[in-house]
Amino acid sequence: MRSVFRRHAAGVAVITAHGSRPVGFTATSLTSVAAEPPLISFGISTGSSSWPAVSEAEHIGVHILGEHQEELAVTFARSGADRFAAPTSWRRGPEGVPVLDGVLAWLVCKVLARVPAGDHRIVLAQAVAGDPTGGGRPLLYHQGRFNALRD
Amino acid sequence: MRSVFRRHAAGVAVITAHGSRPVGFTATSLTSVAAEPPLISFGISTGSSSWPAVSEAEHIGVHILGEHQEELAVTFARSGADRFAAPTSWRRGPEGVPVLDGVLAWLVCKVLARVPAGDHRIVLAQAVAGDPTGGGRPLLYHQGRFNALRD
Repeated sequence: MRSVFRRHAAGVAVITAHGSRPVGFTATSLTSVAAEPPLISFGISTGSSSWPAVSEAEHIGVHILGEHQEELAVTFARSGADRFAAPTSWRRGPEGVPVLDGVLAWLVCKVLARVPAGDHRIVLAQAVAGDPTGGGRPLLYHQGRFNALRD
Repeated sequence: MRSVFRRHAAGVAVITAHGSRPVGFTATSLTSVAAEPPLISFGISTGSSSWPAVSEAEHIGVHILGEHQEELAVTFARSGADRFAAPTSWRRGPEGVPVLDGVLAWLVCKVLARVPAGDHRIVLAQAVAGDPTGGGRPLLYHQGRFNALRD
């Protein structure tokens, strides 16, 4: 299974939420689920440092990273780091959700369900606000490292 | 929402199942959900021609396409086509699931759940067999067209 998914390529996203403090993590599992209503999903480990906040959040932030944001992707995947300290640039967006600056696109979504899947949860959420107008092209992840589109 | 996900890039997969006949469709929503047990998920429209078979299948096939397989991706996205006619090359694999030849990697998975999400379902399935050893690099989809990795 692991070796099969090393062959798969995925776009890179950062998911954020605001509990007692801002939390966030790098995800390669973001997908668009349906258009009407506008639904997205992503996976999260229940052992993740972000899970306590995401497990209770009414809203979460979804950010599509650009190929210029590999450092941000690493920061939000590194344990122990203060992911929201400089040089991370962010603000409180709609519904108080942390919104990262400089991304290709972002959404704030209302959480509809957290579906158990082994030691993970699939979070299903409905887009309520967003901005698709950031500049750049998407960051990708494949075979354990970051990559970009050819064309 | 649609304009946000046009900025996102995704690997391309074909999902198959065998009801009264083989069915399959191109998906950009395949993700690895958990490692123990090995779980995957993908989305499917309940209006899809594959849905009647996928809604009842005990097992489904998951195939990660290579950048040389754009034609196969188009075939499995085109309505009305006989997707399993030549030049599609396939065989019955484990649990009778249609397995496509020439892919980067494939899995046969046992369906665990079909989670309602608007007019789609998120299918959660556990890997039971597979082969990660096909040659090539992954096909990608971004802004309405196929693409490939830069490096």
